[in-house]
Amino acid sequence: MAALITLLTDFGTHDTYVGQMKGVILGIAPTATIVDLTHEIAPQRIAEGAFLLETALAAFPPGTIHLAVVDPGVGTARRAIAVATPQAVFVGPDNGLLSAALPEEARPDGEGPTLVPVPEGVTVVELANPAYRRALVSNTFHGRDIFAPAAAHLAAGVPMEALGPRCTGMTALPPFHARQLPDGSLEAEIVSIDRFGNAITTARARELPPGLLTVAVRGHVVVGPVRTYAEAQGPTALVGSSGYLEIAVPNDSAAARLGLRLGDRVRIAPRGRGD
Amino acid sequence: MAALITLLTDFGTHDTYVGQMKGVILGIAPTATIVDLTHEIAPQRIAEGAFLLETALAAFPPGTIHLAVVDPGVGTARRAIAVATPQAVFVGPDNGLLSAALPEEARPDGEGPTLVPVPEGVTVVELANPAYRRALVSNTFHGRDIFAPAAAHLAAGVPMEALGPRCTGMTALPPFHARQLPDGSLEAEIVSIDRFGNAITTARARELPPGLLTVAVRGHVVVGPVRTYAEAQGPTALVGSSGYLEIAVPNDSAAARLGLRLGDRVRIAPRGRGD
Amino acid sequence: MAALITLLTDFGTHDTYVGQMKGVILGIAPTATIVDLTHEIAPQRIAEGAFLLETALAAFPPGTIHLAVVDPGVGTARRAIAVATPQAVFVGPDNGLLSAALPEEARPDGEGPTLVPVPEGVTVVELANPAYRRALVSNTFHGRDIFAPAAAHLAAGVPMEALGPRCTGMTALPPFHARQLPDGSLEAEIVSIDRFGNAITTARARELPPGLLTVAVRGHVVVGPVRTYAEAQGPTALVGSSGYLEIAVPNDSAAARLGLRLGDRVRIAPRGRGD
Repeated sequence: MAALITLLTDFGTHDTYVGQMKGVILGIAPTATIVDLTHEIAPQRIAEGAFLLETALAAFPPGTIHLAVVDPGVGTARRAIAVATPQAVFVGPDNGLLSAALPEEARPDGEGPTLVPVPEGVTVVELANPAYRRALVSNTFHGRDIFAPAAAHLAAGVPMEALGPRCTGMTALPPFHARQLPDGSLEAEIVSIDRFGNAITTARARELPPGLLTVAVRGHVVVGPVRTYAEAQGPTALVGSSGYLEIAVPNDSAAARLGLRLGDRVRIAPRGRGD
Repeated sequence: MAALITLLTDFGTHDTYVGQMKGVILGIAPTATIVDLTHEIAPQRIAEGAFLLETALAAFPPGTIHLAVVDPGVGTARRAIAVATPQAVFVGPDNGLLSAALPEEARPDGEGPTLVPVPEGVTVVELANPAYRRALVSNTFHGRDIFAPAAAHLAAGVPMEALGPRCTGMTALPPFHARQLPDGSLEAEIVSIDRFGNAITTARARELPPGLLTVAVRGHVVVGPVRTYAEAQGPTALVGSSGYLEIAVPNDSAAARLGLRLGDRVRIAPRGRGD
Repeated sequence: MAALITLLTDFGTHDTYVGQMKGVILGIAPTATIVDLTHEIAPQRIAEGAFLLETALAAFPPGTIHLAVVDPGVGTARRAIAVATPQAVFVGPDNGLLSAALPEEARPDGEGPTLVPVPEGVTVVELANPAYRRALVSNTFHGRDIFAPAAAHLAAGVPMEALGPRCTGMTALPPFHARQLPDGSLEAEIVSIDRFGNAITTARARELPPGLLTVAVRGHVVVGPVRTYAEAQGPTALVGSSGYLEIAVPNDSAAARLGLRLGDRVRIAPRGRGD
C-alpha cells in the first residue's frame, strides 16, 4: 500500500507554499497519497494546530504520516523532529504542535509548551541529516526544505534513525481538557471556531456532569447539551463530532452572535433549579 | 482503473472535517482518487449544492462516485442514501441534494424538495447496514461516519444491495429552469454567485428566445447575451460554461455592482424597440 | 512513473470549476497525480500568476506538467498553447502567464507582455487540434474544454506535435527583477502579498547591495534584511523562501500595517550614515 501523508499548516491557500511542499514530496515519493487536513490554522497559533491535528487522527489508517507546520520559530534554534508511535508518524517543528503523538500521561500539566521526557514506545529524532533535506535550506521555509523531504523519505521507506540523532525529550502542550474549580464547576477554553461559527471548547464529553448544564461565556449563559443542531432554537451547547463540548446557534454563527473568540474562558455547571 | 470519488460539502476548509472524510475513505479504499468539487456551498443551502453538483457532472468519467454533504437535518430522521444510475453513483442525505441523479421527468414540479418515486434504471438504497458505517456514529458528523464509509466501500467493490434496504422513493428538487410567464417573458432565479461575482440564473440557454434580451433584476436592466466576457463594457448577460444565463460585469463583480443575492428573481424578455 | 500535473488559476474554490478540470484530466489520464499550486490569483492578474508559477517551479520534479489559467481573453483570438522545455511542460493561454517557460535572456525588456521568438530548446504548439479538445468547447471555460484535455493527453503520452501547429513566437513578460536607477538605488514592485501579509517585491537577493538597506514604500522606510522573521520587532525586510526581497512585520500583516498593494513601487538603497 502506498504511503498516506497528511498536511496541516498555517500557510493558507493564496500562495504556492503548500503546492511546493507537495512537489517536493512527490519528487521523492511519487506514489504517496497526500491529504490536506487544513491550511487555515490562525497564523502561528500552535495550540489551535495541535488541537485540530489531535482531533483528526482517529479518522486515518495506522501508519499515516502527519506533516504539520505552524512554526513561528522557523530559522531559529528550535529543533525539527520526527516522532514515531505505534499508530502514526509525525513530522514538524518541536514547539508543541505534535503533542498528539504523546499519550496524555506523558504530557505536561500547567498551561504552556514544556519539554517532557519521551516515553517508552515513542521514538523522536532530530531532522539533522543533510542527506534528507533539500540541497539548499532557506531560513524561512523549512516546510519545503526540511519537513517535506523528511516525511517523503519516511514514506519511501527510510528508517527514522537515518534522519538524525535520537532525542530524549520533546516539547508538548498539556492535554486539552476542562479544569475542575473548587466550587465543583468546570472551566474550559475556546480552542477553535469552525466554519459554521460553532465555538469548540476544551471540555470533553466524559468530563461533563450528567443532565442539563449551563455554559457561561462572555456574559452569556446557554443551556445544553442538546443531541443535534436541529433540536435547539437559539444559542445552545452540544457535544461535537470530536467529543468536545461546543457552543452553537442552529443556522447561525455562535461566534458572531455571542462575540466569541479563540482563548475565551468558558464556565460549565449543572443546571440548578434557579437557572 | 481505480475508483474516482468527488466531494461536495458546506464544511469549508478551515477545519479538518473534509480531511477526516478523506482519511476514512483511504483507510477503506486506499487506491481511490479523490477530487474536491467544492466545500464552499453556503451553509446548509441544499439548492445551491444540488445545482453545483448537477452542473459539474458532465466533466467526470462514467462510474464516478459523487459524495455530497449539505445536511441541516444531520442526526434527525432524514435518511442517508446511495443512488446508482447508468452514469454515476451518488452518496449523501436524502434531502434533495442528490436531485441530479434523477432524469428531469422524474423530478417534481413546484418549488420545494418532494419525495418522488424512483424511476426505472435508478437504484436507491438506505445506508442502514452498520457493517458499512464507522463503529461509532456521531450525531453531528455523518459525512465521516456514514457517507464516507459508504462511498469508499462502493469504490472498493461492495454492491449497492449490501449497504441497506432498497428505497422506492427519494427526495428531489424541481429541475433548475426558467418559468414561462403569461406575458411571454421568463422568470428565473439566481442560484449561485461565482468567485468573480457572476450571478448564475436558473435560465438555460435553450429556453431563451433568440436575439437580444433584456434581463431585469433588483431594478437594474442589462442587455445580452454577449458571446464572451471581453465583448461587453458594463453589466451584461451571457450563457456561461454550464449552459445557464448569467449576469456579469467584465473585470468586476456583478453581484457587488448590482447588489445581487442568492434567490433573487430575474425577469427575461426579448429586447423590444423601446428598450 | 505516473505523470504529475499542477494547476494554477484565478478560479477560486467556491465553484466547481477546478473540480471539473480535474474530472476531465482524470477521465483522460486516470493515473495522473494532480497538485493545486493556487487558485487564488487575483482575478485576471496575469503578472501575479506568472510570478507565483515561476517561483514554484523548482520544487517540482523534471517533466512535471504545469497547467495555468488566468485568462481575461478567454473566447477571443488569443492563442491556447503548450510549451515544452528540457525541465517541464506548460499549458495555458498565450498571454504572458507561461513566461517562466522561457530563459530570462529570451524574455522581453520593458514593462508589458510582448510576443518574442521561441528560443532553441523550447517547443511551442498551438492547441488547435479538435481531437484533443472536448467535443463541445464553450466560449467561457477553456480551462475545462481546451487546457485540461491538452495537459491530460500530454500526461498520457500524446506528443506535442499532435496537439497542433508549431509556433515561432510566444507572449512573455519581462523577467521579475529590480531596475537600477541613475542614483545607484534600485526600484522594484510589489508583485504578490502572501497570506501572512508579507509583501513580496521583484528585487532578487543577488541584485541587492551588501549590508543593511533601507526599503522605502508608500512613505514608510524599513531597514533590513534580517535573517529570520523572529529577529525583528517591527516592520522589516528579508529575503523570502523564493529568493526575493519581501517586506514583513513579525506576527502581523505588513500589507495591512503599511497599507501596501499589488503594483506598489519600492525604492531600495544602502543604509547611509544619516538613515
